[in-house]
Amino acid sequence: MMRCLSLASALTLAVTASAGLASPALAADGHGGMASKASDAHAPLFASEMERAREFVDGMMAGGVVVPQPKDPGGGYTHEQHKRNFRAIYQGGQLFEITGDERYRDYVRDVLLEYADLYPTLGEHPAKANQYSGRIFWQVLNDAMWLVHAVQGYGNIRDTLSDAERQKIDDQVFRPAAHFLSVESVETFDRIHNHATWATAGVGMTGYLLGDEDMVERALFGSDKSGEAGFIRQTEQLFSPDGYYTEGPYYQRFALLPFLVFGNAIEKNDPGRAIFEHRDGILLKALRTTIQLSYRGYFFPFNDAIRDKSLRTVELYEGIAIAYAQTRDPALLSVADFQGRTVLTPDGALVARDLAAGKAEPFPFRSLLLTDGPEGDQGAVAVLRQGEANAEGEPATVLIAKNSSQGMGHGHFDKLAWQMYDNGNEIVRDYGAARFLNIEAKRGGRYLPENTSWAKSSVAHNALVVDETSHFDGNGKYADKYWPTQTYFSDAEGLQVSSGMIDSAYPGVSMKRTLVMPSIPGLEEPLVIDLVHASSDASHQYDLPLHYSGHIMEYDFEAERFVEGRPVLGSDNGYQHIWVDAQGALDDGKGALTWILDGQFYTYRFAANGPVTAILGESGANDPEFNLRREPMIILRARRDGEVAFASLVETHGSYDGAAEQTLDSRSLVADLTHKRVGQMDIVQLTLKSGQRYAVAISYNPDPDATHSAQIDGETISWDGYAGVIALATEE
Amino acid sequence: MMRCLSLASALTLAVTASAGLASPALAADGHGGMASKASDAHAPLFASEMERAREFVDGMMAGGVVVPQPKDPGGGYTHEQHKRNFRAIYQGGQLFEITGDERYRDYVRDVLLEYADLYPTLGEHPAKANQYSGRIFWQVLNDAMWLVHAVQGYGNIRDTLSDAERQKIDDQVFRPAAHFLSVESVETFDRIHNHATWATAGVGMTGYLLGDEDMVERALFGSDKSGEAGFIRQTEQLFSPDGYYTEGPYYQRFALLPFLVFGNAIEKNDPGRAIFEHRDGILLKALRTTIQLSYRGYFFPFNDAIRDKSLRTVELYEGIAIAYAQTRDPALLSVADFQGRTVLTPDGALVARDLAAGKAEPFPFRSLLLTDGPEGDQGAVAVLRQGEANAEGEPATVLIAKNSSQGMGHGHFDKLAWQMYDNGNEIVRDYGAARFLNIEAKRGGRYLPENTSWAKSSVAHNALVVDETSHFDGNGKYADKYWPTQTYFSDAEGLQVSSGMIDSAYPGVSMKRTLVMPSIPGLEEPLVIDLVHASSDASHQYDLPLHYSGHIMEYDFEAERFVEGRPVLGSDNGYQHIWVDAQGALDDGKGALTWILDGQFYTYRFAANGPVTAILGESGANDPEFNLRREPMIILRARRDGEVAFASLVETHGSYDGAAEQTLDSRSLVADLTHKRVGQMDIVQLTLKSGQRYAVAISYNPDPDATHSAQIDGETISWDGYAGVIALATEE
Repeated sequence: MMRCLSLASALTLAVTASAGLASPALAADGHGGMASKASDAHAPLFASEMERAREFVDGMMAGGVVVPQPKDPGGGYTHEQHKRNFRAIYQGGQLFEITGDERYRDYVRDVLLEYADLYPTLGEHPAKANQYSGRIFWQVLNDAMWLVHAVQGYGNIRDTLSDAERQKIDDQVFRPAAHFLSVESVETFDRIHNHATWATAGVGMTGYLLGDEDMVERALFGSDKSGEAGFIRQTEQLFSPDGYYTEGPYYQRFALLPFLVFGNAIEKNDPGRAIFEHRDGILLKALRTTIQLSYRGYFFPFNDAIRDKSLRTVELYEGIAIAYAQTRDPALLSVADFQGRTVLTPDGALVARDLAAGKAEPFPFRSLLLTDGPEGDQGAVAVLRQGEANAEGEPATVLIAKNSSQGMGHGHFDKLAWQMYDNGNEIVRDYGAARFLNIEAKRGGRYLPENTSWAKSSVAHNALVVDETSHFDGNGKYADKYWPTQTYFSDAEGLQVSSGMIDSAYPGVSMKRTLVMPSIPGLEEPLVIDLVHASSDASHQYDLPLHYSGHIMEYDFEAERFVEGRPVLGSDNGYQHIWVDAQGALDDGKGALTWILDGQFYTYRFAANGPVTAILGESGANDPEFNLRREPMIILRARRDGEVAFASLVETHGSYDGAAEQTLDSRSLVADLTHKRVGQMDIVQLTLKSGQRYAVAISYNPDPDATHSAQIDGETISWDGYAGVIALATEE
Repeated sequence: MMRCLSLASALTLAVTASAGLASPALAADGHGGMASKASDAHAPLFASEMERAREFVDGMMAGGVVVPQPKDPGGGYTHEQHKRNFRAIYQGGQLFEITGDERYRDYVRDVLLEYADLYPTLGEHPAKANQYSGRIFWQVLNDAMWLVHAVQGYGNIRDTLSDAERQKIDDQVFRPAAHFLSVESVETFDRIHNHATWATAGVGMTGYLLGDEDMVERALFGSDKSGEAGFIRQTEQLFSPDGYYTEGPYYQRFALLPFLVFGNAIEKNDPGRAIFEHRDGILLKALRTTIQLSYRGYFFPFNDAIRDKSLRTVELYEGIAIAYAQTRDPALLSVADFQGRTVLTPDGALVARDLAAGKAEPFPFRSLLLTDGPEGDQGAVAVLRQGEANAEGEPATVLIAKNSSQGMGHGHFDKLAWQMYDNGNEIVRDYGAARFLNIEAKRGGRYLPENTSWAKSSVAHNALVVDETSHFDGNGKYADKYWPTQTYFSDAEGLQVSSGMIDSAYPGVSMKRTLVMPSIPGLEEPLVIDLVHASSDASHQYDLPLHYSGHIMEYDFEAERFVEGRPVLGSDNGYQHIWVDAQGALDDGKGALTWILDGQFYTYRFAANGPVTAILGESGANDPEFNLRREPMIILRARRDGEVAFASLVETHGSYDGAAEQTLDSRSLVADLTHKRVGQMDIVQLTLKSGQRYAVAISYNPDPDATHSAQIDGETISWDGYAGVIALATEE
């Protein structure tokens, strides 16, 4: 069974074998075909992946076959052991496939034979939390993940088993597991939800392996095979036409694995279905979109995101390998290079080989608009990038305007919120989830109470808050029915723009936000102009928070400092978690705050349409278990009848170099910011300390050929299209 | 004048030329001798340095010769312009030396001719802050720095000038500047202080260049040439025999430049003096010691240190080049590699060439004891390293016991304090200085009021505080007269130990501290045991703070949480800056606190000899200008008549991997910690959750052959020497 090849021919074979072996669930009749047993016959990335797998599987083998009676919930012993087992079945099968070493085959077989004894005896899980109990695990989702992995490992050894062994494992593990997911758990199976994607993937791949057409059909088209549910429908409903997954990047990454792995199995077993071309290539588009939703490898953390999730995650190792094999897009190789990981499949071998051959090209990170919703009509996420690209092809600065829909239960109440990254750091922040994943001391690693009381609340975001309540009054079910409208988007160099509006977040209040990244001579990029309007027939209090990262250098307004005892800002809707450091009443509505982060200065400068109270605060009040991070914010508070308007500027300036003891432009280069409305148009005027003056004017008319003009302080300015930057007469 | 060489011969010549050109202040008669004019004839590090210098000097040349009338203090225009000028003279001279391009020569000459017109007209500086006024700058120190740099640039061009030019610059710039420093400013010149080192270096190098033996003698032996002052005396008085500079690593780095640059000039001009062998090679030893006082390139930030100072600093670019040329020690090349910089001297060319030739070897970071004081009898700094070394040869963990003397005006009141780094991070912290260097908004970049009120105070350190006052009552002049005794040090693998004591920090209170890094089977390294004793005839309150970095996971004691308003801990001596988050009275004196930092868990576990109050706090109260960083601490507070004892443990455990969603050992592996005194011996017992039990026993007898034994709970333990780790019977 084991073939000894020379190094050169092994590499050749690894590619030649690719077609025959590419569906892990449908093993060809040869094993050990990808290379000789010596891992040095592989490209470095693949070889190190083999080492890692050997270390893990050999360790499992040394511990013997351990298939315990299911007992514990997530994190407990039996839960973790069954997770280890499915990884060992999966990777053991791969190692057998690659090396032909029968020890791996025997181990995978023995584990599965143990499951064959156990599985038929299982009923509801003793630790089930609701009606959706798994068999091996406490919830159906984990059983589906088990099946997706185990069926692939089984596929690698099945044709080498005796008929009796094969029969026993087919009939006592995989058929009943597929039956459990697709028939007994039909409520989960037929949902349009990522849990159902895992289930259909497991069932469908089992169907392909066992040659059970009925199973495959149910996986593809739902339990009644009508196409109203099932995998194909999921590809049509769970992603927007731009490949955006409504829960946001953190969950998009998680959902991606079953989509791509099952997609790959469909492609290999049923190529006529052209699954990777389905819906304009949505599966591969979703993968690229996932990558676009990251900065320096880390996903934008909006909604219930764990902030340390990056492109270095197993879902994307699989995804990149599959997508590269489909497309040979050299940009995907640079993602694999960043990951430093791949998978033990022929696709992974191809990635490793082409990466070693120097074929990688930078990933084309760029500005883009990602519509939300199956039809692309439920709002959008706008991503504006600019600045010099680093070695990975990623520009220094990115601004994200979150004008998307709620995104179900993991959504946050942050309509029209935004974020900004620059110089490798998150400058205008999103808190992400209040959760310490898998850390027992923090409520078993589950979502913390502060996830609801702080992280989801509107005031925890860079979002306009009315009357100290959250959007949609913090009601998720209600929130799922409404979304903002993306009214304009432009990625034009030197004047990128995103506009959004929503009138359903608060009864009787209409809110609009326009974010502009203009190039202004004399000011460094990145520069962001933020225009927020809200109007209502009623009188309201409007709070506009900016959550920033850095240490305060100075602010230019008078404020009372609470140095011996900090009051708490409010009592509910997140306000109970805010300490007040300082508070100042600004009659003219104008002020500026400068902070430093990582050798770079930033100034937030604002001008409101009337008096505001500026509040410097910090998260962390009413946090009995020390669950919250303590992070600074500034809140602009205005009470208005009718309309409120906040114009503001986030200005990047100067630098601090501790090594060279050199500091440049530590103070803002802007002398003044003013904002005027002329009819329905907004005119923001900047006066630089150099005396140069500029207007940034917004017509809100998307017609690029329409010409607009306005009178400000006796000067007439004019521009074409939605927005313009106009140089004004220089001040004396 | 310009020689065109092939690439190969240029490299050869660069080395050959080294002897003749190595004294920048004594240029040989050839210029452009180091290489062809094409910078690509140089090794990459040197070539990029040339590019950097060209960019700077070309920019200066484009701006013309600008030598303004002195007017401004530090940071102001004339100050910065004269700084730029001395850099341009220095680097312009080097560029002329290397390339032979006469534009550089002409520019340096023209600038110096301008100074020749200006200098004789100068009197006291209009912005002088005290009696030590400079001429070009507001303080003497800056004038000395000007001379050290300018004389080197002048040395590179002097032999190419006309006699008239040379005479004018000699007589109207360098002679009067040397006279100003060594005669008019004799009080500074004759000090034993780093300011005097700059002055003697400038004067001595000027003496060598002008062939003025009298000037050289004064520089070497003081204004009266008695040897009571001057450079030689400074090398004997300012460093300890181990090459430790009493102000600490941050200032050691600063002091190093004139020591090594003038040392190098002495070596070249007066080789018989064997300056680099003087006092057992103290100058090169001081350089190596400076490097040892760093972690991941950053200097240990004790005393008034700016925390972002690293090995990447101009003083050490010069230092490494000079030391490498003297020693050819390949370990210094890896420091240059880390720096990514060198200097435009033959020594720098040699570093760049040997680095490019792959000759670098890891720097031997290790455990070591650095005595303080000219005779090595004023305390010490103990550095304990352990763990796997990274690519640069640096172990993962370092513990620093600061048992050194006060270190003059920049010293902090932190006797017997300690720090720990692990996994790339500072785990047990030192605040460093409260200062934003060169940032105008922060009081012009000067030391902030909080530097005195917080950063220097004892409670801001990991130091024992008696009755809420700082050591030596915060009196620096008084503090300079006393220091701890380093009573023991061992770098034995698996059981490293540092012990220190002091009885002068508080009247009538004797304090001892022993820090141990033992290897305990079943516990991950690094593990630190900290034993603090104090005794007094009077009743006192003892506070033991631990300033840590990370987010609280859990603590195992009852504590009142101040979630709606945090009290301030005290009113003076640093206590006014501490917010209280929680406070608990622990009758048995025992407790544990776990935090996470960067994927690593740490538990601080303590056992005191009686009740303590545990205070969880944070810096940042009473900070009206937002000058302080907000950082967590735990303070153990005990009131005692007679003796107080705190035994504690910092345990590194487990890991959190967000990418793999894998958490290991997030909870402490220790079940219990107890501490007993048996006569004068200390016995710390650890019970692990596995049931294993260990004793760490300290006899305080340095004789390695002495055998000790003690009875604890019916068990007899015995060990040899100062300390031992003893396995006890396993618990059921």
